[in-house]
Amino acid sequence: MKNNQFAIETVDSATELKELRAIHFIDASIDNLDDPLAVWKVLLHKTILEAKSETVFKQKLNNYLATPTVALGDFLESQQPLTNEIFYCVALQLLQFDVDSDFKLTEPLTAMKKIQLPVITDPIQSKADLLHAWYLLLCTHTKNGQTYLDKLTQDGYFVSFYKQTTQPLFFNGKAQAVFDPHQLIRDVVYVEAPLDTDQDGKRDLLKVEILRPQQTEQGYKAPVLYTASPYNQGINDEAGDAAMHNVDVKLQAKEPNQLNYKDIHYAEKSAPLPAKRQIAGEQKEADETFAMEAPYTLNDYFLTRGFAVVYAAGIGTKDSDGIRDTGAVSETVSTIAVIEWLAGNRTAFTNKTDNVEIKAWWSNAKIAMTGRSYLGTLATAAATTGVEGLKTAISEAAISSWYDYYRDGGLVAAPNTFQGEDMDVLATEVFSRMQNPGDYLKIKEYFDQVLTIMAKDQDRNTGNYSHYWDDRNYLNNVKNIKADMVMVHGLNDWNVKPRNVGNLWNALRDVPVAKKLILHQGQHIYINAFRSLDFTDMMNLWFSHELFGIDNHAKELLPDVLIQDNTQPETWHTYEDWQSPKDSHQIFNFEAKELVPETVPVRTAAASFSDHLDPETFDFYKKHLDVWERDLLTTNHDTTGENRLRDNRLIFKTSQYDQDTYIDGRVQLQIRVAVNEPFGMLSFQLVDYGDAKRLTVSPTILASKALSGTYDWRRDNLREFTLQKETTPWKMITNGHINLQNRHNNYQVDELKANDFYDLTVELQPTFYHLLAGHQLGLVVYATDFGTTVRGNQELQYSLQINKCKMSLPIK
Amino acid sequence: MKNNQFAIETVDSATELKELRAIHFIDASIDNLDDPLAVWKVLLHKTILEAKSETVFKQKLNNYLATPTVALGDFLESQQPLTNEIFYCVALQLLQFDVDSDFKLTEPLTAMKKIQLPVITDPIQSKADLLHAWYLLLCTHTKNGQTYLDKLTQDGYFVSFYKQTTQPLFFNGKAQAVFDPHQLIRDVVYVEAPLDTDQDGKRDLLKVEILRPQQTEQGYKAPVLYTASPYNQGINDEAGDAAMHNVDVKLQAKEPNQLNYKDIHYAEKSAPLPAKRQIAGEQKEADETFAMEAPYTLNDYFLTRGFAVVYAAGIGTKDSDGIRDTGAVSETVSTIAVIEWLAGNRTAFTNKTDNVEIKAWWSNAKIAMTGRSYLGTLATAAATTGVEGLKTAISEAAISSWYDYYRDGGLVAAPNTFQGEDMDVLATEVFSRMQNPGDYLKIKEYFDQVLTIMAKDQDRNTGNYSHYWDDRNYLNNVKNIKADMVMVHGLNDWNVKPRNVGNLWNALRDVPVAKKLILHQGQHIYINAFRSLDFTDMMNLWFSHELFGIDNHAKELLPDVLIQDNTQPETWHTYEDWQSPKDSHQIFNFEAKELVPETVPVRTAAASFSDHLDPETFDFYKKHLDVWERDLLTTNHDTTGENRLRDNRLIFKTSQYDQDTYIDGRVQLQIRVAVNEPFGMLSFQLVDYGDAKRLTVSPTILASKALSGTYDWRRDNLREFTLQKETTPWKMITNGHINLQNRHNNYQVDELKANDFYDLTVELQPTFYHLLAGHQLGLVVYATDFGTTVRGNQELQYSLQINKCKMSLPIK
Repeated sequence: MKNNQFAIETVDSATELKELRAIHFIDASIDNLDDPLAVWKVLLHKTILEAKSETVFKQKLNNYLATPTVALGDFLESQQPLTNEIFYCVALQLLQFDVDSDFKLTEPLTAMKKIQLPVITDPIQSKADLLHAWYLLLCTHTKNGQTYLDKLTQDGYFVSFYKQTTQPLFFNGKAQAVFDPHQLIRDVVYVEAPLDTDQDGKRDLLKVEILRPQQTEQGYKAPVLYTASPYNQGINDEAGDAAMHNVDVKLQAKEPNQLNYKDIHYAEKSAPLPAKRQIAGEQKEADETFAMEAPYTLNDYFLTRGFAVVYAAGIGTKDSDGIRDTGAVSETVSTIAVIEWLAGNRTAFTNKTDNVEIKAWWSNAKIAMTGRSYLGTLATAAATTGVEGLKTAISEAAISSWYDYYRDGGLVAAPNTFQGEDMDVLATEVFSRMQNPGDYLKIKEYFDQVLTIMAKDQDRNTGNYSHYWDDRNYLNNVKNIKADMVMVHGLNDWNVKPRNVGNLWNALRDVPVAKKLILHQGQHIYINAFRSLDFTDMMNLWFSHELFGIDNHAKELLPDVLIQDNTQPETWHTYEDWQSPKDSHQIFNFEAKELVPETVPVRTAAASFSDHLDPETFDFYKKHLDVWERDLLTTNHDTTGENRLRDNRLIFKTSQYDQDTYIDGRVQLQIRVAVNEPFGMLSFQLVDYGDAKRLTVSPTILASKALSGTYDWRRDNLREFTLQKETTPWKMITNGHINLQNRHNNYQVDELKANDFYDLTVELQPTFYHLLAGHQLGLVVYATDFGTTVRGNQELQYSLQINKCKMSLPIK
Repeated sequence: MKNNQFAIETVDSATELKELRAIHFIDASIDNLDDPLAVWKVLLHKTILEAKSETVFKQKLNNYLATPTVALGDFLESQQPLTNEIFYCVALQLLQFDVDSDFKLTEPLTAMKKIQLPVITDPIQSKADLLHAWYLLLCTHTKNGQTYLDKLTQDGYFVSFYKQTTQPLFFNGKAQAVFDPHQLIRDVVYVEAPLDTDQDGKRDLLKVEILRPQQTEQGYKAPVLYTASPYNQGINDEAGDAAMHNVDVKLQAKEPNQLNYKDIHYAEKSAPLPAKRQIAGEQKEADETFAMEAPYTLNDYFLTRGFAVVYAAGIGTKDSDGIRDTGAVSETVSTIAVIEWLAGNRTAFTNKTDNVEIKAWWSNAKIAMTGRSYLGTLATAAATTGVEGLKTAISEAAISSWYDYYRDGGLVAAPNTFQGEDMDVLATEVFSRMQNPGDYLKIKEYFDQVLTIMAKDQDRNTGNYSHYWDDRNYLNNVKNIKADMVMVHGLNDWNVKPRNVGNLWNALRDVPVAKKLILHQGQHIYINAFRSLDFTDMMNLWFSHELFGIDNHAKELLPDVLIQDNTQPETWHTYEDWQSPKDSHQIFNFEAKELVPETVPVRTAAASFSDHLDPETFDFYKKHLDVWERDLLTTNHDTTGENRLRDNRLIFKTSQYDQDTYIDGRVQLQIRVAVNEPFGMLSFQLVDYGDAKRLTVSPTILASKALSGTYDWRRDNLREFTLQKETTPWKMITNGHINLQNRHNNYQVDELKANDFYDLTVELQPTFYHLLAGHQLGLVVYATDFGTTVRGNQELQYSLQINKCKMSLPIK
């Protein structure tokens, strides 16, 4: 078990004492004491919140051991001197670590070090020493991955503060849960966006759901965590399923073109916009409320810490106006209209009819955006507008260019497990106006027209980058970003693929804002309830700084680049950069089945593979993508029989690495290839070959409903990537795809003659990978990717001129 | 989509009106109206809880359509007559069904019928008609599987009732959520059990966690839902893992014996018991409280409906005294001590030291037990004592005899996915006193002694039934049951196997209590948040009757036997009995690879199989139980290559059934077998062979966190078994195992000579299975069961005299 905390602020002794007093650990009963043991006992008393009598307090105290043989209560009465061993022996128990399985009673300090828990190494002898150690303990994570103070908070520590709360309370630079979650006020307002996407001659009104502390009614101004979620008013699952595209279609030859970037570059069109509504009055109280929002648990955590939380689904969603056009500028404008209102720069109304204005009078006009996937995408989108009021965007598993979500290298390339999905399908899924039949009746026809245009513009026939996609590429506007950016992404996220965060990170490198990057070993997930990382604390430090202006060194304490190691659990490394321009490169030549160092001369040779399967095997793989993936990567016959993909791919392997190696960023391939038709594609997987117990990519639930961080409030599951029980022989590191007619870029279509050899360069999805000594790297070259590309099962034969192929690995 | 509601009580018109008034749907504003449309509008107004202005109300009203082209608000103002089509068109929308995907606007009545929603067929013309229809609508399930009234409740309908609440409020025979969940009082008390299992000379004190309505402080007496969960104070996962037994051991010859049942029948020993503690005073208020219990969501639902909820983990758990001895009488005594206290018949103290008594003065002394698996087991155990105060036990996926959990037919037989677990492992896992190191220090040595005895008594060497197991067989005491019983079990539960509920059901048949049985198509799961069944309502009706004494016809409305169909989703059938003695039987003879009707003469023939695998295959199967299971049941070569189990089992199949057939209960086999060693075992699987889309056995989450049934309260996921996307060629129906030396019963060991033929009879686990016409039944005969039995990989050769084998199927 390894703890990794980055959000502990080191403060001076006076600040520690002041803060301990502010949260009532120091009070008159402590002031009157001098003996550290007596002080400790009073502090412990305050933590045993379940005890309402002295007897119970003593009973609970003696559940802990001060030494391997003496219970804590007995020790405190024994007048024996306090030692650091004793303090930390008890500390480990308070932090919920288990005797024997997590630590030995005889060696608490060894355990503190091994688990990577912070310790005071100077002798704890005086009252001052003890208070210093106690302060640090309150900041330290329990076995359940929350600070000890947050553990006490969910036990009820701050409940007695609720009635007195008028302002937020900070401890160690982080806001504490002194706001009663059951007194939250829930408002609905309708923001008037500078859009008329449904072309009804009126600006689109957008429903906004607000949860704000009751104290805002008494003048408290709250900062806002805003999550723009197209999903949160409902999803049209069945309509979306019905709209899915057939991917079992043939790849076709494309007409060559000579397009330059300027030909497809999107320039903003200024469409005429209806006038703003005439304001007919103003009202302070909302006309509408709501009961159940679709929450993000990270937001829930902050709802009791002085933050307001705002959810908005945007154009085309239930109760809002407008038409959903996935990724379009209108979607971004819709997203930031809410920020503009929160910052006092746009109008909202109490309802959709009366034109009575309602201001965000309770907002401190400092806003952060949160959320993952589409939600994080809209946070990125909003940031690229430079909108006033948006102080920071937490962009988790976010798309930075929609082309990189549904396309790759001039090919239709589905996000993992969503074969057949596309822009129009997603637009259908989130068009929740459908769920208000009375409203839908008015808009159905127009929406169907828009869908038709969308289906044409997204252009599944060519897979080319175009005006349409350039319009939906946020990277074009990264230079406008004024908000500080926190990016979180899974290195195993094959839904929103790593190129999305990779390109954003690269584009941001020279933009004058603070930017932080966290790359974890998961798929498409949230990481706010992980045991091994204090992500929630980091965000608390960050938001306390960005939105409350607390001088807590958040920007220095949070590492610029934090990457989880893939070879062992609970291990996080900090770096200065990712995909650093300063990286060195390992370059490999290709031999038959081998990758050899560039210095090794290679003989002229070719290798070929078929992309065709017998129909039975083809059907089987379509239904069993896991078996297809296994067969694709398995070099030796496994024990389940013949490998039916043996002739359908080439595998090239390096020799065993003699030392641990870190691949940092974009692997580049030079390939000389021919195909027996005037069209074709190649797919690549870079694979770590070597027996190892590897991490799960889906988190394991370590403790169900164990986390709330607030008394009597919503709970979350504690999660972590754990080691799989069984050894696996390989792991896919990264991959890439290219249409052989897009040898220059994704918009220019090149001529392809059957059986002629062509050179092309492919950049795989960026990665960060710790390759263990003794392992081999393998490059798998194939064509149809069952999980990603179209699947025509055509009679295609590919040949590689392997002595003209190269692979370049960026090495940290 | 199909709705199945059993808990709607039909009441007379006067009762409907009285109840509508009690929940404030009828009030003065309705009394003054006569026009049904005007009445409907007022009712609708009360449901649109988010509207705080008339404008918003109208806005929301027009989100619904009254006809395919007229919005509801417009319709209500149009003075057009109300029709049943219009009422149910709107009703379907109120119930959250989606236009087009769930119903056609033009055919609402057809949809109501198809979805199986109750309707008023008489014309809805008058105010009285409308109120009648509205009453029924409030009782009707939404698409999210909760009553419309519960949907309104979680939207906030009853929040305004909280301050006036002094007593529970019933609607349609079911308690409503008029108790504020955030005002609950949380007490801890220590019940003094008539036990001294840790032999410290003092009776064991047991920690009890209580959540009770605040109104109990003002004299309200609450009934109690009590969940006895050995897990809820924590689990020693690591210690449990370390205690797991190696199952890769050889099966051994057992010494024959001549035991009769009386030789192993357990007779209660009366051990001397320390005196009760001297009571030193009495106190009304608890000394101790708690913040986070481990909740059961069904209990959460009732916490706001006037029930108190009590959790206790029992002997040997954190903060309690005692030693955990899995399944022993002491565990049952520990379980019911809490009931005795709740009913006023046992003493509890405010803490473990002061001997100050605290009574359950807030309890109405009527108790129900709830919970699944070990929790349900303890509910069954408690019921078999006939303890006073226990009115009903909801026994979900419960063990009825621990032998049937860890053993089968004279063999060690693990519950599914828990190979190597046994009584001592489970005792270790739940001995959460370990988690209080100060407390554990005192008891560790004695607990280790107890574990040693337990390991010996459980006797993994023979797998025989014995004194030890007879002591842990609740079936011995079913005749003592006085509580009404509700049993819930999964027909695909291979953890707590169906024999457990099967034997309990049979034993209860003549016991004079009410008993209800629900068999679903899941594994080892809860069913209280399923869309297709109103289980929560059924329990509400049941508890309102059993614990509040409401005359709501619960015993008549709930079917005696309710079984989910395995061939199509959301389909539940009611029956009078399960495993009915009145069933007919289909008897089959065995031919080479075939099962033929008993009337078909068969030739003398034998068939044999090996139980040995090459070590590589053996190791592979141990790690890939799913592949083993697939290879075991696959008759034809599948597309992944050779079947490595071809020579390791026999498969006998019937011809295709020409009509749908229902197997009801225990399939019986007569087998004549020889083995080449003086020991051996047989395993059997009865299999449905035939291509079909089958139900998932793990529920699919249909809507995440959609259910709470109370405003601002804990949420649950809506779940359902759905059809798998792909057709599967077979499904295991039931199975069985036998040690060839236990041919008479599980305690008598018979002689077995190598290569001699012996006759034996095996009863498979009871089932209920709908076999579709066109399918075949298959019987798979094998020996080592990788998921269940020991795995010695011995050179065993089994022969069946197949003309002397028979299979008998009970048919409904």
